[in-house]
Amino acid sequence: MSSNVTMEKIVSLCKRRGFIFPSSEIYGGLSSCWDYGPMGVELKRNVRHAWWKAIVQDRDDVVGVDTSIMMHPNVWKASGHVDSFTDPLVECKSCHLRWRAEEIENQAMKQPQKEEAHPTTPPIWRGTCPKCGGDLTEPRLFNLMFKSFMGPVEEEASTVYLRPETAQGIFVNFENVVNTSRKKLPLGIAQIGKSFRNEITPGNFIFRTREFEHMELEYFVKPGTDGQWLDYWVKERFDWYVKLGIRKENLRLRQHGKGELAHYAKDCYDVEYLFPMGWSELEGIANRSDYDLTQHAKYSGRDLSYYDGQSRERYIPYVIEPSAGVDRSVLAFLIDAYREEMVEEEKRVVLQLQPALAPMKVAVLPLSRNEKLTPLAKKVYQQLCPSFMADYDDSQGIGRRYRRQDEIGTPFCVTVDFQSLEDHQATIRERDSLAQIRVPIETLEETLRAKLGGEPFDVSPLWATRQK
Amino acid sequence: MSSNVTMEKIVSLCKRRGFIFPSSEIYGGLSSCWDYGPMGVELKRNVRHAWWKAIVQDRDDVVGVDTSIMMHPNVWKASGHVDSFTDPLVECKSCHLRWRAEEIENQAMKQPQKEEAHPTTPPIWRGTCPKCGGDLTEPRLFNLMFKSFMGPVEEEASTVYLRPETAQGIFVNFENVVNTSRKKLPLGIAQIGKSFRNEITPGNFIFRTREFEHMELEYFVKPGTDGQWLDYWVKERFDWYVKLGIRKENLRLRQHGKGELAHYAKDCYDVEYLFPMGWSELEGIANRSDYDLTQHAKYSGRDLSYYDGQSRERYIPYVIEPSAGVDRSVLAFLIDAYREEMVEEEKRVVLQLQPALAPMKVAVLPLSRNEKLTPLAKKVYQQLCPSFMADYDDSQGIGRRYRRQDEIGTPFCVTVDFQSLEDHQATIRERDSLAQIRVPIETLEETLRAKLGGEPFDVSPLWATRQK
Repeated sequence: MSSNVTMEKIVSLCKRRGFIFPSSEIYGGLSSCWDYGPMGVELKRNVRHAWWKAIVQDRDDVVGVDTSIMMHPNVWKASGHVDSFTDPLVECKSCHLRWRAEEIENQAMKQPQKEEAHPTTPPIWRGTCPKCGGDLTEPRLFNLMFKSFMGPVEEEASTVYLRPETAQGIFVNFENVVNTSRKKLPLGIAQIGKSFRNEITPGNFIFRTREFEHMELEYFVKPGTDGQWLDYWVKERFDWYVKLGIRKENLRLRQHGKGELAHYAKDCYDVEYLFPMGWSELEGIANRSDYDLTQHAKYSGRDLSYYDGQSRERYIPYVIEPSAGVDRSVLAFLIDAYREEMVEEEKRVVLQLQPALAPMKVAVLPLSRNEKLTPLAKKVYQQLCPSFMADYDDSQGIGRRYRRQDEIGTPFCVTVDFQSLEDHQATIRERDSLAQIRVPIETLEETLRAKLGGEPFDVSPLWATRQK
Repeated sequence: MSSNVTMEKIVSLCKRRGFIFPSSEIYGGLSSCWDYGPMGVELKRNVRHAWWKAIVQDRDDVVGVDTSIMMHPNVWKASGHVDSFTDPLVECKSCHLRWRAEEIENQAMKQPQKEEAHPTTPPIWRGTCPKCGGDLTEPRLFNLMFKSFMGPVEEEASTVYLRPETAQGIFVNFENVVNTSRKKLPLGIAQIGKSFRNEITPGNFIFRTREFEHMELEYFVKPGTDGQWLDYWVKERFDWYVKLGIRKENLRLRQHGKGELAHYAKDCYDVEYLFPMGWSELEGIANRSDYDLTQHAKYSGRDLSYYDGQSRERYIPYVIEPSAGVDRSVLAFLIDAYREEMVEEEKRVVLQLQPALAPMKVAVLPLSRNEKLTPLAKKVYQQLCPSFMADYDDSQGIGRRYRRQDEIGTPFCVTVDFQSLEDHQATIRERDSLAQIRVPIETLEETLRAKLGGEPFDVSPLWATRQK
């Protein structure tokens, strides 16, 4: 993270340039919900696409699925979510606000302890309501799944949950995928989709929200090989962020301590990013062992074992799970790309996003709004937009338009000026170097294609080098 | 629709080849929920991409957004959904099942009326429970929005709805988008995302489901020009399906009758497709007038009018809304592409999908699983998969593998045989013509690229011609 990036600057840029708006803003917003604007939706699409390309398209051992958000309630009994996906909460006896017990505990630990020389009372009992100072109740478990009712009657039988992870949609389809895909283990099944968690304390912009988008891979392997596959995926996933432009010094790996592991996990690493609020989880890579398939076999009565034709064994596969968040990745890419620079004694803000991630690959800008320049500039735009996400902008001065393109991270601006009417050439301005070259209009597409890297705008190692 | 396609055949193909599975199938399924398998997810991605490309990328008057599923509850009061998004239900007094009043009414209309020569009793009162024949209650209004609770307390104040349409996420962001996008009217805002409707009678496979994916465009125009823009979008959207390969004779337009219009609509056309169960709505293109922006201005207290710099007027824009379903489109594309043919006295099933939609663009098939062929075939696969969604399959006989690729609609198979080891050539087999050509392995990528059409696999008019 460059030292001068704050969350406020990112939130402000996102609002100003149409990346991210507070949801339902005209109604005062809805807690922790955010809407992606015209630039944000393209950035998000690119993040999803880069993940899908690396995980599904470029590999012959992974296939994708897209399963429903609402699933049979027994799925969540089997997975342990009904019983264990809970947070202990305390309630203030005066103002009735609820708080995560953990939060109160941490707060109490930090407070000087005046009354007890050798504290024996657990810290939670020394905590008071952060809002009004009132006494708190004992911690009570609260389930983090959103609940709804399917069908016309609100009753127990029709209760459905909004999935808190996409992973279970993969586990319950393991048999279907193995039977229809003709693939052998090791086999990965990948999914991108919305998940919902009724978090008590969402926050930090789009870092922790109640509605968010998961990118999850469940990689099924032979038991005994799970350790080496965990190592493999930890490296793969770490490198993915680096290839997409995140500076290595802002990333680190952290292995979970024994007490910290989720109920299903045998081992787990977090890829952490140095967000403005400190090192925080970007992605978890867990060894889920055979927990999920075993549970689903038990609850459904189906045999979910796999026959390994090579070793002639039948076993329940182990699962390595790299689980990332689209929104959280978007936030990290934005923060890491944010730069403030002095150019000709003026400050410019520039998002040095990889072209693969940039919302617009190219902007077409007539030097001014003019009856001769406009038709030519529009023609150039029409020529480029089928191949690249392209922006067209003819409002205000050229300087302000460059600044806007810098702030949304557009790697190339194509400017059409009066000379273009004579020589049929246009100027390409590079976002990072600010170099300008003049090329024939009919070669623009191929020139840009070469500069942007492979098809469809592959992560380009060349670009990563040039960017520095 | 070719005369021999039935829904059963499509459902069976989808299950067999990994397009679509019943959700939570190992638990007996969840009513009307479906999961997309490895082929289905790619088809769905392609449908989304084709829509986004036509609506957002290829135009300079439309931008995208991606708004949250959970919105401020007042959004649904303003939009009229809390009051009017209802279905009248009747309940059986004996077995307590609930039915759509409309359904019972239609059924009653069809029954011979024995007792009354001049019927004055409304048909609903002559209806009985279709399940047990019991008497029915009076119709009662039932809201079709899914309800949940945000935050730890289940109470009225924290009630949230799952959006029944993506459109409202666009309306509440109209001001934000206009302010940040520097675009002028006419301006479209497009969105793809999940919507939820607690339908009483979902059915017909993925045609009507409670959880589904919307592709919605809200196109904001100057009042008075709305009629011509409605005509424009009706034509655009009809043509989109034709360009993507749906036969014209299976499509028709139907204008809504006055009594049929939704509470917000001034006019509406349905694009209907000849599904196996008959002509049914594929997409609705509605003139929503200024209803939504006016309502949101009223409920939020914000001025949502637009200043038109050209005419120097301030007005609430009218909105033309082409609203399509991803799942419904997927179903229509599958049905329309389905063919049964006799080839050399054997029946083959083939999905003649446009390459733009086909889940896999190419399959790499070694003639047999062999220690010399496998490395070469894998090399060919590795060479092609960064550019195209490619499949690799070396199980079973080559005939069965061709049949599988035909059934998932792969336009090209590349076969590597023993001669390939000598002459470094491979065979390209075309799905529709069954023609085979032999080309040097190093030219495979460019040959396939030329055959597939523009980048990134644009809807190719050439292909549409060749396909016939």
